[in-house]
Amino acid sequence: MAALKRLVPSLNRVLVEKIVPPAKTNTGILLPEKTTKLNSGKIVAVGPGARDRNGNLIPVAFKEGDHVLLPEYGGTEVKLGDKEYHLFREDDVLGTLHE
Amino acid sequence: MAALKRLVPSLNRVLVEKIVPPAKTNTGILLPEKTTKLNSGKIVAVGPGARDRNGNLIPVAFKEGDHVLLPEYGGTEVKLGDKEYHLFREDDVLGTLHE
Amino acid sequence: MAALKRLVPSLNRVLVEKIVPPAKTNTGILLPEKTTKLNSGKIVAVGPGARDRNGNLIPVAFKEGDHVLLPEYGGTEVKLGDKEYHLFREDDVLGTLHE
Amino acid sequence: MAALKRLVPSLNRVLVEKIVPPAKTNTGILLPEKTTKLNSGKIVAVGPGARDRNGNLIPVAFKEGDHVLLPEYGGTEVKLGDKEYHLFREDDVLGTLHE
Amino acid sequence: MAALKRLVPSLNRVLVEKIVPPAKTNTGILLPEKTTKLNSGKIVAVGPGARDRNGNLIPVAFKEGDHVLLPEYGGTEVKLGDKEYHLFREDDVLGTLHE
Amino acid sequence: MAALKRLVPSLNRVLVEKIVPPAKTNTGILLPEKTTKLNSGKIVAVGPGARDRNGNLIPVAFKEGDHVLLPEYGGTEVKLGDKEYHLFREDDVLGTLHE
Amino acid sequence: MAALKRLVPSLNRVLVEKIVPPAKTNTGILLPEKTTKLNSGKIVAVGPGARDRNGNLIPVAFKEGDHVLLPEYGGTEVKLGDKEYHLFREDDVLGTLHE
Repeated sequence: MAALKRLVPSLNRVLVEKIVPPAKTNTGILLPEKTTKLNSGKIVAVGPGARDRNGNLIPVAFKEGDHVLLPEYGGTEVKLGDKEYHLFREDDVLGTLHE
Repeated sequence: MAALKRLVPSLNRVLVEKIVPPAKTNTGILLPEKTTKLNSGKIVAVGPGARDRNGNLIPVAFKEGDHVLLPEYGGTEVKLGDKEYHLFREDDVLGTLHE
Repeated sequence: MAALKRLVPSLNRVLVEKIVPPAKTNTGILLPEKTTKLNSGKIVAVGPGARDRNGNLIPVAFKEGDHVLLPEYGGTEVKLGDKEYHLFREDDVLGTLHE
Repeated sequence: MAALKRLVPSLNRVLVEKIVPPAKTNTGILLPEKTTKLNSGKIVAVGPGARDRNGNLIPVAFKEGDHVLLPEYGGTEVKLGDKEYHLFREDDVLGTLHE
Repeated sequence: MAALKRLVPSLNRVLVEKIVPPAKTNTGILLPEKTTKLNSGKIVAVGPGARDRNGNLIPVAFKEGDHVLLPEYGGTEVKLGDKEYHLFREDDVLGTLHE
Repeated sequence: MAALKRLVPSLNRVLVEKIVPPAKTNTGILLPEKTTKLNSGKIVAVGPGARDRNGNLIPVAFKEGDHVLLPEYGGTEVKLGDKEYHLFREDDVLGTLHE
Repeated sequence: MAALKRLVPSLNRVLVEKIVPPAKTNTGILLPEKTTKLNSGKIVAVGPGARDRNGNLIPVAFKEGDHVLLPEYGGTEVKLGDKEYHLFREDDVLGTLHE
């Protein structure tokens, strides 16, 4: 079976690759644990969206490449090839992060 | 009673034949357990769809032959003849897998 | 009281007569327990259907004579005369079986 | 206080007088316990009906005199004068019985 | 603070004064406990009604003076002056009683 | 920080100042505990209202100055300056009291 | 990774910076614990809003800079750089505070 590379999430699910913040700065200084605990990730793929009560399709509010803040718990672990991703429902993603 | 071959799922249920990933490559090399744990399957049959709040029929988003990612738990085991399948509600299928 | 023969289910309920698969083939050979465990039945009567949110009547998707796959649990036992039936809500019936 | 004779149920409630099946036939033969266990009753009064999501009044599907199949549990006991009745919500009545 | 006499219930709540059936007839004969257990009361005040899903106001189906059958449990005790009343949601009142 | 004096409740919340009924009459006579147990208060501020299913804003049914009957439990305690108030959802307020 | 400064909350979430009331007045007098317990904060960012049943986007009722009263419990802790914020759903914010 050829290695699976891509998952198109269903409904309003989004696929996220978690970002593990570096414990040290580029010059090797240990970052205080407090600043490194932000649970965030990059959106890799989004579903087509979910339907509202009247059957209208509501597209997902996030797009590929968005840097998003993730909840502490939840998310389904998904391994594609040797990469690890997490699948969330759109509503559980807390927001987009900007520099 | 003639052997039953086909199940047409009701509502937005989908019938899936699980794919058990090979533990070894074609040349017999043991695959690391991590890559073989993907819980996926092929869509064998889909229901007509479910109705939204206003009674409109919303067709199922998957079609026969789709390679889908399945949740770790859930699904109803169904034996047809000597083959084993699993029945899921559409919303529980996590997405479609592509090479 | 004359023997009661017929039940017209209410709402989207369906009345099912369970099919107990023969443990042996016609020629008396014992069937492997696996193939005989299919929990199925014949639809004997269906209700008028249930109403959606806007009060429209949605007719039941099954009809008399359909061979249906039943969930492992649930259903209300109903005895009419000396026959035993089971009453299900339409949504709990898993699908129709075809040879 | 004059004896109360009539209850007009509210909403989609129905008032039922349970039918206790005779343990013996007219000629005194003991009926097998299996056939006598049918939990049924006569509809004595019905409410005006309940409203759907949009406020439309949906009349009750049963009428006075209907012979109905009752669920094993549930129902509110109501004594009017020296008669005993049971009050059910329409959705809990399983269907109408016919000879 | 002048004695409070009147409560206008909110939403679809109704205020009821329970009727305690006499244990004896006018001529002093003890009534069998069975007939005296009817849990009923008089409607003293009704709220403006509740809104359906679309915001339309649905007036309460009971009016002042109605003799109503009450559920065995529930209701909020309200003391106004030295009188005791009970507050119910409209849906919990089982129906109107008539001689 | 200047002392905070005013809270504008959100959605269909209402701010209430509880009325503690006097244990004695003006002439010092002890009031029977029964009459003093009415759990009531004055409406101090109301929110803009909540939206129904279709997004229409449904204004709060109470207004500043209303004397209201409160449920025995519930409500969020709010201290503004040295005054104590309670915040309720509109639906939990039982009705308006009138002399 | 450049320090993250901004979070745009999703749906009808709002980002709040809690206000820790001073234990002493400017002239150093200890404030009674009662007055300092108000659980409030400043709105730092709001989401685009949530959709009602029919898919219409309902904007958030709060805006940046609003001084809001917070519930005693709930809220998700979010660290951006060395600042600590809390993320709430709009409905959980109790109201706006004014001098």
